[in-house]
Amino acid sequence: MAEGGKNIFETGLEANAANFQPQTPLSFLDWAAGVYAENTAVVHGERKFTYREFAGRCRRLASALNKRGIGVGDTVSVMAPNSPPMLEAHYGVPMSGAVLNALNFRLDSGGIAFILGHGEAKALITDREFSPVIKGALSQLDSPITVIDIDDPYADGGEFLGETDYEALLAEGDADYQWTPPADEWRAITLNYTSGTTGNPKGVVYHHRGAFLNALGNALVFGLNADSIYLWTLPMFHCNGWCYTWGVTAVGGTHVCLRRIDPALIFELIGEHAVTHMCAAPIVLNMLVHAPDGAKQVLGRTVEVATGGAAPPSAVIAAMEKMGFNVTHLYGLTESFGPSTYCAAKEAWADMDPQDKAREMARQGVRYPTLFEQRVLDPETMAPVPADGETIGELMLRGNTVMKGYLKNEDTTAEAFAGGWFHTGDLGVVHPDGYVEIKDRSKDIILSGGENISSLEVEETLYRHSQVMEAAVVAKPDDKWGETPCAFVTLTPDAENVSADDIIQWCRDNLAHFKAPKEVVFGPLPKTSTGKIQKFVLRRQAKEL
Amino acid sequence: MAEGGKNIFETGLEANAANFQPQTPLSFLDWAAGVYAENTAVVHGERKFTYREFAGRCRRLASALNKRGIGVGDTVSVMAPNSPPMLEAHYGVPMSGAVLNALNFRLDSGGIAFILGHGEAKALITDREFSPVIKGALSQLDSPITVIDIDDPYADGGEFLGETDYEALLAEGDADYQWTPPADEWRAITLNYTSGTTGNPKGVVYHHRGAFLNALGNALVFGLNADSIYLWTLPMFHCNGWCYTWGVTAVGGTHVCLRRIDPALIFELIGEHAVTHMCAAPIVLNMLVHAPDGAKQVLGRTVEVATGGAAPPSAVIAAMEKMGFNVTHLYGLTESFGPSTYCAAKEAWADMDPQDKAREMARQGVRYPTLFEQRVLDPETMAPVPADGETIGELMLRGNTVMKGYLKNEDTTAEAFAGGWFHTGDLGVVHPDGYVEIKDRSKDIILSGGENISSLEVEETLYRHSQVMEAAVVAKPDDKWGETPCAFVTLTPDAENVSADDIIQWCRDNLAHFKAPKEVVFGPLPKTSTGKIQKFVLRRQAKEL
Repeated sequence: MAEGGKNIFETGLEANAANFQPQTPLSFLDWAAGVYAENTAVVHGERKFTYREFAGRCRRLASALNKRGIGVGDTVSVMAPNSPPMLEAHYGVPMSGAVLNALNFRLDSGGIAFILGHGEAKALITDREFSPVIKGALSQLDSPITVIDIDDPYADGGEFLGETDYEALLAEGDADYQWTPPADEWRAITLNYTSGTTGNPKGVVYHHRGAFLNALGNALVFGLNADSIYLWTLPMFHCNGWCYTWGVTAVGGTHVCLRRIDPALIFELIGEHAVTHMCAAPIVLNMLVHAPDGAKQVLGRTVEVATGGAAPPSAVIAAMEKMGFNVTHLYGLTESFGPSTYCAAKEAWADMDPQDKAREMARQGVRYPTLFEQRVLDPETMAPVPADGETIGELMLRGNTVMKGYLKNEDTTAEAFAGGWFHTGDLGVVHPDGYVEIKDRSKDIILSGGENISSLEVEETLYRHSQVMEAAVVAKPDDKWGETPCAFVTLTPDAENVSADDIIQWCRDNLAHFKAPKEVVFGPLPKTSTGKIQKFVLRRQAKEL
Repeated sequence: MAEGGKNIFETGLEANAANFQPQTPLSFLDWAAGVYAENTAVVHGERKFTYREFAGRCRRLASALNKRGIGVGDTVSVMAPNSPPMLEAHYGVPMSGAVLNALNFRLDSGGIAFILGHGEAKALITDREFSPVIKGALSQLDSPITVIDIDDPYADGGEFLGETDYEALLAEGDADYQWTPPADEWRAITLNYTSGTTGNPKGVVYHHRGAFLNALGNALVFGLNADSIYLWTLPMFHCNGWCYTWGVTAVGGTHVCLRRIDPALIFELIGEHAVTHMCAAPIVLNMLVHAPDGAKQVLGRTVEVATGGAAPPSAVIAAMEKMGFNVTHLYGLTESFGPSTYCAAKEAWADMDPQDKAREMARQGVRYPTLFEQRVLDPETMAPVPADGETIGELMLRGNTVMKGYLKNEDTTAEAFAGGWFHTGDLGVVHPDGYVEIKDRSKDIILSGGENISSLEVEETLYRHSQVMEAAVVAKPDDKWGETPCAFVTLTPDAENVSADDIIQWCRDNLAHFKAPKEVVFGPLPKTSTGKIQKFVLRRQAKEL
């Protein structure tokens, strides 16, 4: 041991500017602009930007924000669809030192006003298409904030609300602006509000370190490289596009913007731009599967599609693969920078029946190599459950791609991190091969006659019925059993004469009898602004049946 | 601002065990053993280990070392070729808390004794093939250390020197051993001595953070995934196999061991194991290019080969590509965890004449996306040189894949990091496309009549002569010019009647006249234990001509 109790490896070997720098995804943009300066970085309709141009626009944005007095510790909110300004904000805002708050454009005025207030936004950059909602939100704020309008030629209507427009703001800035790296990689980079099925949304704070790492993890797991053409079917406001906003740039790939989910347009863009990769929630895949024949196009090559945000029914996976997509199932939460977990493909699956393969793939799987640990633990004792595919525990994560915490919400933050693990709130099992399968959100599990029924397992069976397009199962209070499963079902457009009894019988034929729904309700399903089915609404309905 | 001058993003959002864990490449092994438990991790001749077995052996090693009192702050040296024990030591030794010191098996007893003493090795694990050298080294040590013998069935002769053998050591350990992550990712993971063409070698200390990141950078840049079959043509003692010891595991690929460089065996293994990737110094590529026809085999598919450690002559790149290899040129130093820089392929090169393409590829290129910054600076003023392809400066690096420093050598460490940049000692230019090209080591540049002559540029021209197999150019003192270039050349086995004048004429036809060598010496070139040409020996020879 050397002096002072330190060993020889801890003496005279301190960190300095040469060997220790903050990990930040902002460095990927400088890198891509250096290596692939003339390659296409961003496509938006007829508009294209090279990496040199894209980086210049981001630097201008950062510079212009600084000139307007916005920097470290400030929040800049953006209300925009998947378009260049939203992508540029992922670099320009944190380059300025500020924190990006990408808003969910499906929220109403009240929801937006709450977030702008809670997040203490200093400025709002907003696409004119959303001016009706934003106007309402701004009128509810206590004090005025700087508003910048985006005048996107592809925007649908709307009016200008702010003092200047986005392109004029960029013109205020300097394309050669030198950004200052965060003093610490633990600094906040973005603020993402959870959609929250009830109550006020929580502000999830991301750090530079995690955004950098999850971008690299995404690139590795999804096989991205400089030839990748990435179609933005996933909203960038959703966990910063699951960190693909940075991950695609980390390899010098091309971002293809998409303002709205339209199956015909998606198929068209895949062909036009030779798209190689895209991400989307299962509900979007379901839209592609059920698109009218006229809207569908034969893919010229295999297109890699990553899905997550909700458990994809195996029937949807199988149908996508049949169309020529190669599906990777990702799992994660806003709190884990989007994907933390993926269903790594196994060699043995190649020879499987497509339905069986899809069932394997519908499992959530294993941790990203960039996540430190993932376990299914008994939330009471924090003991791991056996890898038997049956014993239910809570999925917990720990590592460097987990949020800093919830903004201005120390109690909920402490609760989420109790025992040194992030509690996902998702209940699942570990299979003998080490793959995790989520059985339910803790609050969605159905307790019937002392048995746990996984609503996901019943839904999975319903989706396999050829005439079911969407399904959700919730608990209905029952005097005898405590609770019984109640199914809400949307049939496919071509479905004919399907009765509740048919559906119940299908479930009894494919599930343990006690798991089959006792009641079936047909009709469209209520959804949150991010497309998640609102089970609390259905539970209320079920109670009143 | 919130209380205490902190902003809202720095309050109640502290790091904890759930969201902050050390970055260490050891976590990749747990990951691979979880995801790809039954996949082949390591191939060594007839022997194969699955990831489950490989991880078990590494845990046993760590456990056995702990039981013998070896842990945090201790050094464990390993003298072994590319074989399972050397690979296992990259995990087992740091899992135990100790620092791995992989020894260059081409060193002599004196060199090994110096390193064991300077590095304060507590234990040495040694392959019996190297017992003659090790026996001599051990006899020079001041105090005895624990010696473990590796009895590899493929070893050539030798004797046992230690108290027990490696497999017996593993049997002392526990395959379920739970390793403790480093308390800080800045902790030392390995100690690598530079070969040093003169003077005592320097001990370069790596940290967990950098090893983790460079492993990810390698996987991305080289396109590794779970299907990759990686052939170990690069010595693992060389910058920990350029961090591919960890990088291949980070994707769940297969390591194929190779004890010695034998072109026929390399071609054979490529075919037998369907090798997809390999790394090697240019000198090894040159051996493959000039292998007898009987030893060569037609590749069944494109094999990715990364080369570095010295500038690859474009003629060697072109010849490798002609044989079906796809070459990626990496640049780096021991101090930068091996590769920090690569010559990223450009679309435009696809249509180029193979020679022109190879010349583009022979440039060192751009930084890894995982390195923070790379610049060519005037070492006096630290000002960047213009990107004109002509102005020479010193290549400097900064980021998280730069060493902690030199062990017990604070002055040299401070010098290497002067001004907050790691000084590579390599002189080069920046081309207009941002790609760096090394012109020379600072001490290798030739000053003739007031002009700088890059020895690399002259060598590059010599290598393009069809009958030159190897070449090195050094300065020869000259009364009139100060210095003149002197060439040392090894001809190909089939060369006939090539004279010094022929060589000089070839250079005059292909270079500015003042750059052509004034003298040419034929014969084999002196090399260091890592295969680098010893220019200081040639300089001495040139002086005496």
